[in-house]
Amino acid sequence: MTGFVSLVGAGPGDPELLTLKAASRLRAADLVLHDALVDPAALGLAAHARFFYVGKRARRKSISQSTIERLLVRAARRGERVVRLKCGDPFVLGRGGEEALALARAGIPYEIIPGVSSAIAAPGLAGIPVTHRGLASGFAVVSGHAEQAFGPMLRGIAPGSLTLVVLMGIANRARIAEVLVERGWPAHTPAAIVLDASWSEQASWTGTLDGLGRCELPAEHPEAAGVLVIGEVVSLAEALSAAPATAVRAA
Amino acid sequence: MTGFVSLVGAGPGDPELLTLKAASRLRAADLVLHDALVDPAALGLAAHARFFYVGKRARRKSISQSTIERLLVRAARRGERVVRLKCGDPFVLGRGGEEALALARAGIPYEIIPGVSSAIAAPGLAGIPVTHRGLASGFAVVSGHAEQAFGPMLRGIAPGSLTLVVLMGIANRARIAEVLVERGWPAHTPAAIVLDASWSEQASWTGTLDGLGRCELPAEHPEAAGVLVIGEVVSLAEALSAAPATAVRAA
Repeated sequence: MTGFVSLVGAGPGDPELLTLKAASRLRAADLVLHDALVDPAALGLAAHARFFYVGKRARRKSISQSTIERLLVRAARRGERVVRLKCGDPFVLGRGGEEALALARAGIPYEIIPGVSSAIAAPGLAGIPVTHRGLASGFAVVSGHAEQAFGPMLRGIAPGSLTLVVLMGIANRARIAEVLVERGWPAHTPAAIVLDASWSEQASWTGTLDGLGRCELPAEHPEAAGVLVIGEVVSLAEALSAAPATAVRAA
Repeated sequence: MTGFVSLVGAGPGDPELLTLKAASRLRAADLVLHDALVDPAALGLAAHARFFYVGKRARRKSISQSTIERLLVRAARRGERVVRLKCGDPFVLGRGGEEALALARAGIPYEIIPGVSSAIAAPGLAGIPVTHRGLASGFAVVSGHAEQAFGPMLRGIAPGSLTLVVLMGIANRARIAEVLVERGWPAHTPAAIVLDASWSEQASWTGTLDGLGRCELPAEHPEAAGVLVIGEVVSLAEALSAAPATAVRAA
């Protein structure tokens, strides 16, 4: 009997931001393949499962994408209920499409369980709505991992037309700011960095595009969990971030 | 004693796509203010609450944004635990920022609970990853509600540089396609419409940008719940949508 694979978005980190469906699949799982940024409390829901860490960031010798895909197919063929737990949403810069294709090609039944994406939640939890009446009716989410990818994408967006959200761009933030200023974004455009969104260590910096490359970040924050936000909506953070903080204490 | 307001993303529709935190706030709620597209099963979690429908689409005489904000503030001042349940994520084209500002200005403690956004989940559930290695390392989400907003945004994005997701754009799809072709997007760019994503009535159309304006949609689908997707990633839908359908039956 063939098993079943659920490609599950784990959300930005806080296990309470798992969906009900994600939690139910974890509870029923025989095997969980998870990334580096998934909270141990989320994994704790999978009371009967074996766990396999396939994250790429923290390991010296990382597991290749094709190995992950082979593990998924093999476990499903053994009849197991497999959860592939991915940070954020499985289809936002997480190679979920490749895993889904591998499963489809192997004839393995699978499902996609969308998750809360850090692209929207990280700004939101720092008091920055990616859209706001009068400031932005749209936003773009781009990978800041490699200049050959972010260069053309960022140059392809007219300055100020949308809120820009950059994932995996902390290490390249100086170059990203430079590309945008060259493209015509005003140096004083509001900009923010949100680190470890939804974790207890959440922290954020706000300033301008100009300052994005020069700001120093606390060393304890892993680079991978940072999100850059650029656009007028960042100016709302001051008014909106104080109250939620109070709110969390009051809750 | 002042109450507390949770601005909660309800996700795309399927109540199983609520987050654990959203479900727990609903269970504890005294009052729930909800939109048109929120599933009754989600509301059922709020066993002890009064409900107030503040959706803007289905009513002839719609409730103004300032009235919604006044209702939130007033209920919190009565000491109630209020859930403002919004479709998708509260900060994606949902005027959540305005509600948060109103609460902050009134000194009401509140929190943001991010949700699964249809902008990502609707394509994903139709087998379309908004990003995919070799096809797109980023995506843009824009409101298709009014040309004065979508015109400049769509003209501001270089053809083919990102996956385009248009929310609230079903009625304007012909004009949206026209603007994009004028801007230089090839008429044969793959395009899709996803209707009622995550509901049992989910349906999708795939074709090209050229055909987007001409395709006919089943009359029973409310326009508001449709998402347009434009870009090469749409070409993956054929391979990826068949298997999840099987999967859902097998689950």
